[in-house]
Amino acid sequence: MKYNRIFNFSAGPGQLPETVLEQARDEMMNYHKTGMSVMEMSHRSKDFLAIFEAAKEGLRKAMCVPDTHEILFLQGGATAQFAMAPLNLLNSQNPHADYAVTGNFADIAAKEAKKYGVVSTSYNGGPDYTHIPVQSELTLDPTADYFYYCANNTIFGTEWHYVPETGSVPLVCDMSSDILTQTVDVSRYGLIFAGAQKNLAPAGLTLAIIRRDLAGHAMPITPKIMDYQIMIDKDSMLNTPPCWCIYMLGLMLRWVEEQGGVQALQKRREQKAAMLYEAIDSSRLFTAPADAFSRSCMNVAFRTESTELDAKFLAGAEERGMKNLKGHRLTGHMRASVYNAMPIEGVQALCDYIRDFDKEN
Amino acid sequence: MKYNRIFNFSAGPGQLPETVLEQARDEMMNYHKTGMSVMEMSHRSKDFLAIFEAAKEGLRKAMCVPDTHEILFLQGGATAQFAMAPLNLLNSQNPHADYAVTGNFADIAAKEAKKYGVVSTSYNGGPDYTHIPVQSELTLDPTADYFYYCANNTIFGTEWHYVPETGSVPLVCDMSSDILTQTVDVSRYGLIFAGAQKNLAPAGLTLAIIRRDLAGHAMPITPKIMDYQIMIDKDSMLNTPPCWCIYMLGLMLRWVEEQGGVQALQKRREQKAAMLYEAIDSSRLFTAPADAFSRSCMNVAFRTESTELDAKFLAGAEERGMKNLKGHRLTGHMRASVYNAMPIEGVQALCDYIRDFDKEN
Repeated sequence: MKYNRIFNFSAGPGQLPETVLEQARDEMMNYHKTGMSVMEMSHRSKDFLAIFEAAKEGLRKAMCVPDTHEILFLQGGATAQFAMAPLNLLNSQNPHADYAVTGNFADIAAKEAKKYGVVSTSYNGGPDYTHIPVQSELTLDPTADYFYYCANNTIFGTEWHYVPETGSVPLVCDMSSDILTQTVDVSRYGLIFAGAQKNLAPAGLTLAIIRRDLAGHAMPITPKIMDYQIMIDKDSMLNTPPCWCIYMLGLMLRWVEEQGGVQALQKRREQKAAMLYEAIDSSRLFTAPADAFSRSCMNVAFRTESTELDAKFLAGAEERGMKNLKGHRLTGHMRASVYNAMPIEGVQALCDYIRDFDKEN
Repeated sequence: MKYNRIFNFSAGPGQLPETVLEQARDEMMNYHKTGMSVMEMSHRSKDFLAIFEAAKEGLRKAMCVPDTHEILFLQGGATAQFAMAPLNLLNSQNPHADYAVTGNFADIAAKEAKKYGVVSTSYNGGPDYTHIPVQSELTLDPTADYFYYCANNTIFGTEWHYVPETGSVPLVCDMSSDILTQTVDVSRYGLIFAGAQKNLAPAGLTLAIIRRDLAGHAMPITPKIMDYQIMIDKDSMLNTPPCWCIYMLGLMLRWVEEQGGVQALQKRREQKAAMLYEAIDSSRLFTAPADAFSRSCMNVAFRTESTELDAKFLAGAEERGMKNLKGHRLTGHMRASVYNAMPIEGVQALCDYIRDFDKEN
């Protein structure tokens, strides 16, 4: 390969497209004859504002975000949103929300929300978290301020393959690990948020898409920077935003368009996941712990029956230029994260290796 | 010049050293034979942890941070710290703090703190903010939880040239615009914080240096991500940190060392400021609004007596490759921000232009 680059199966930050990195490199010393790098630009300058607006409009187009919803570029990752969502949305006379706890991050989010109101557990999949509930398994309160779920569980390799039906209760969704990998009917959501570092941009940018009428009711104790309405009023520029990450998001969105848009990426994501699960299912040695209905297209968790064999598999993968297949310490699984920028060739290389390893061991 | 780069006098994000940008460019496609860009690295990987530790240790060395103090890499800019400081430090029986309001950002910080406790104004320099108080002008409460000040006022071009004496009351200081430009006795401070985008790294990283005993007393309503103790316990990795900015900080710190360390940068900052104020003071047309004792070495505010002449000056500066000399909308001044990465040559070019313009108009 041109730069001796490897296939990076990291759960996040994840791989970026080579052409995106090349463009960032080539524009580094002097962006579009401005005489400076994007990293040096005043966030209020017309050069940077053009980058900012293009990224925002690119995202609105890619995700078909309706006019009822605002796009915000924030900081602090999903973890900041775990507090920001309840601080802003727990605003009824009797503040309470429903949380579907289908993984580690949903659990952390529910605990954070308990600081600010009453939290009911609509579903608890712990401690194994191999199962995503079907609609009938959810306990829903029709008077809740919102219903919260995490669309894809990076650690446990499970994913919601439907949008839960909650009537008039706003849906709040952490899409950190599968945003922009499939079409989403944004109008069904009250709030979508995502750390950028898996499918959107480098770490340091947090995307929020909020239905406008849900903002403007933050608790008085809300830090200014965590008030959605203030960030809407300031068009994400209450203070200096993470400019470089916004620029990289813009490059990524152009790449998405070149690929054929989100619909094309969705086909590719399904193809990549099908290839991997097929290789695992047809092997003697490997199993995928997630329920068939709950399998993630983004993070394919798998294992052999022995930690020695797992270790041997990982060492061999490194030798073949496939890195970061070791899973999260909470599970002991191996895990292939195949976000948007992971090419089919990378998945094919991993499938070939799974088959070879299965024969030879 | 090699890349047709300009002199960027932006108040922030600011100019970065050309060699730092070159290195970032050259390492973009494959960092140190890892086969990936720093932007693609798992924050838990040994490759990234080496970058992280080097940046932390580099900063500890550059600023002589004593073992009593922790270094944190956070997000959200100074604006997040405006809430984070009171949420953590307003923790006595009778929560109250003293704020010296010497500019716009100190004023915003004081207002934010009022959400969480009682705030007394030790000094108010508004609305002109041309003056930094001497010690005897400060009204100090010896029982305050902390005393807050903003070391350099980017907008108004004033700077504290001494460290206020507050006895046992911890000093909290926003050093966003002059950190790493002069030696600081960190042991005198309870908390120092700084947005990175002026002297440290690109926008998206926030540095905090906190005396360890001051952490661990956050209010129960504190978002997890705003709890200094949690961030200390997690070594700034409660969640994914702004990896690229931390990498850039590491490159900047190596550049600082090559320049001769902070002591050498301090000499250079004094030289640059002296050159500019000398050019302004010896002109017929230009004046600097700040009090002589309060003049900032970082942001040199100046003006003529006419908005037409100011506009003419700014247009001519652009033609000579000097950008972003227009000041903040709150003041109507012009402003030259001369952070660490602004070379003497840039300041010389501006001084020459000031003299030429003064002769010709």
